[in-house]
Amino acid sequence: MVYNFNAGPSILPKEVFEEAAAAVLNYNDSGLSILEYGHRTPAFEGIMQEARDLMKELMGLDDNHQVLFLHGGASTQFMQVPMNLLDLKESAAYTDTGLWAAKAIKEAKLFGKPEIVCSSKDKNYSFLPKDFAVPNDSKYLHITTNNTIYGTQWQKIPVTSNSMVADMSSDILSRDLNFNAFDLIYAGAQKNIGAAGVTVVVVNKNILGKVKRNIPTMMDYRNHIAEGSMLNTPPVFAVYTCMLTLRWLKKQGGVKAIEKINNEKAALLYAEVDRNSLFKGTVAAEDRSKMNVCFVMEDGQKEAGFLQYATDNKIIGIKGHRSVGGFRASLYNAMPLSSVAYLVELMKAFENN
Amino acid sequence: MVYNFNAGPSILPKEVFEEAAAAVLNYNDSGLSILEYGHRTPAFEGIMQEARDLMKELMGLDDNHQVLFLHGGASTQFMQVPMNLLDLKESAAYTDTGLWAAKAIKEAKLFGKPEIVCSSKDKNYSFLPKDFAVPNDSKYLHITTNNTIYGTQWQKIPVTSNSMVADMSSDILSRDLNFNAFDLIYAGAQKNIGAAGVTVVVVNKNILGKVKRNIPTMMDYRNHIAEGSMLNTPPVFAVYTCMLTLRWLKKQGGVKAIEKINNEKAALLYAEVDRNSLFKGTVAAEDRSKMNVCFVMEDGQKEAGFLQYATDNKIIGIKGHRSVGGFRASLYNAMPLSSVAYLVELMKAFENN
Repeated sequence: MVYNFNAGPSILPKEVFEEAAAAVLNYNDSGLSILEYGHRTPAFEGIMQEARDLMKELMGLDDNHQVLFLHGGASTQFMQVPMNLLDLKESAAYTDTGLWAAKAIKEAKLFGKPEIVCSSKDKNYSFLPKDFAVPNDSKYLHITTNNTIYGTQWQKIPVTSNSMVADMSSDILSRDLNFNAFDLIYAGAQKNIGAAGVTVVVVNKNILGKVKRNIPTMMDYRNHIAEGSMLNTPPVFAVYTCMLTLRWLKKQGGVKAIEKINNEKAALLYAEVDRNSLFKGTVAAEDRSKMNVCFVMEDGQKEAGFLQYATDNKIIGIKGHRSVGGFRASLYNAMPLSSVAYLVELMKAFENN
Repeated sequence: MVYNFNAGPSILPKEVFEEAAAAVLNYNDSGLSILEYGHRTPAFEGIMQEARDLMKELMGLDDNHQVLFLHGGASTQFMQVPMNLLDLKESAAYTDTGLWAAKAIKEAKLFGKPEIVCSSKDKNYSFLPKDFAVPNDSKYLHITTNNTIYGTQWQKIPVTSNSMVADMSSDILSRDLNFNAFDLIYAGAQKNIGAAGVTVVVVNKNILGKVKRNIPTMMDYRNHIAEGSMLNTPPVFAVYTCMLTLRWLKKQGGVKAIEKINNEKAALLYAEVDRNSLFKGTVAAEDRSKMNVCFVMEDGQKEAGFLQYATDNKIIGIKGHRSVGGFRASLYNAMPLSSVAYLVELMKAFENN
């Protein structure tokens, strides 16, 4: 057994791997691989419908909120969001809380006037600034709910009367939120939704169609809504993997049930980071992410040794991002509590040796 | 056994399904699924490199031509090509030879002045117009090398002194062409390259960086070249499936060898369409596609009967596109000659009954 703490693409449930592998050989006893299924077949239309329905159900979405499965990754959403929501002279409020947030701001400049309402950049994004105001004329407030690289997460979503837009790539479906309070949510699938190669967008249809520019066909959310995410050939297998993962999540009891386990996992690991004399956390305690636990060693010289020790014990993917250093253990939905306990035992053993 | 004549996503080699399924369970004896591999791991970097190298080798590309594996499908290329190559006041020549060509023209209007230099629209795209001139000031000539819906294919690529851009989604790697004569080639993977969810772009790097507009980060080919198609998380599994399919093609002897078989397959089926008293082809003989063979019945009333007969005999995916009607048999690289012979036998048997 290998313990995969990768930040993404990352661990998925074992039964998803098993069902996906079986479908690549012979989908549903059809004699065909899922990879050779035309996207206009009833079988795939059913998969797309089920994936969409499960997202709606798991997130408790109302009928204004449409679920889309798109190409392009969250990085494409950095441009697609302002292209659809912001006119050139309009402003939108952005929170500068990490590398990905900064990339979103960069793209928004091509389509409107993003205004940075808060930033923790000068502290290497080690906390989330909470004392900020959003101008009334901001078309929307953009937040990154969880910052994968730095290990921070909004434990309370900022309250504003503006429209809310969120990049939830690394914590969607991991905790119960009022998802209907957001007008647009986007997330690369490759952490909690499924495999890499598809991006989920949840959008309140009432906010669309208000900008003056001509939006290219593939960039206009309205076209994807009208065509049920089949405006062009969708990433068939990636959507199928999402559907399997969402089925699994529903079987676990849904978002509230998984949140409870996610809280236990994070509490267990942070407790050890705080207790163990060799390690320390890197971010403000109140902003600690339950998805990506970042920590370093009191003595940086020992980090190579612990990394080797973890590797020797079948742990992979815990090297921290180069902008933080040290370690990052990603605890997405599919990561079992027992694997986190295993990592904690290794940290204890390393301290004792 | 099921005989899959789908137009795409479509049949892939059996060994690709087997290797891909094994990798979803346990990639290369790592204890990990290919779906949980981080894209920055040496393993995946090796996969991406091999896929790129195989494309270069199979297409015989020179060092100016860069191979990219992108998100978004060919439909995204309809906008991305003019966004990168055309200034707002510049014109480009477009050949209107089918639904997809028309969609490319529509998107180009947002970024420059596409000029339709020829069209077969008034004949339901049943032939390829060859008597046309390309204005000298056209930034490029855009062609669709194979028109999947109508079953036409340029048997001789138009000769022009202008830069050449081609949508090769449905015939790339199926025949030997001087690929270096094109400055830009794009193709959705889901016919001859691999599974749905990734798009291959081959671009001459020397044509980039000449337009005045600010190109969004994800739309600028130069960024994808600089980052080796890993500007953001790539569609890991789709790229892996491409790599496996390209390995298979190399093992078959490459493009020239598969072209020989593709010619045999198409010749066999067209001969029967012409011979059989019940059937007739729908396009000009000289423009017949070797990838998508479109045909109807002399007596349209009999079409439902033949479709049922084919279905009863384990043939799927031969219903023609609604804009042509009748039948379409897609004979991509992975389709064995024996399956085409099987279809021909059914056509004979249906005639005899």
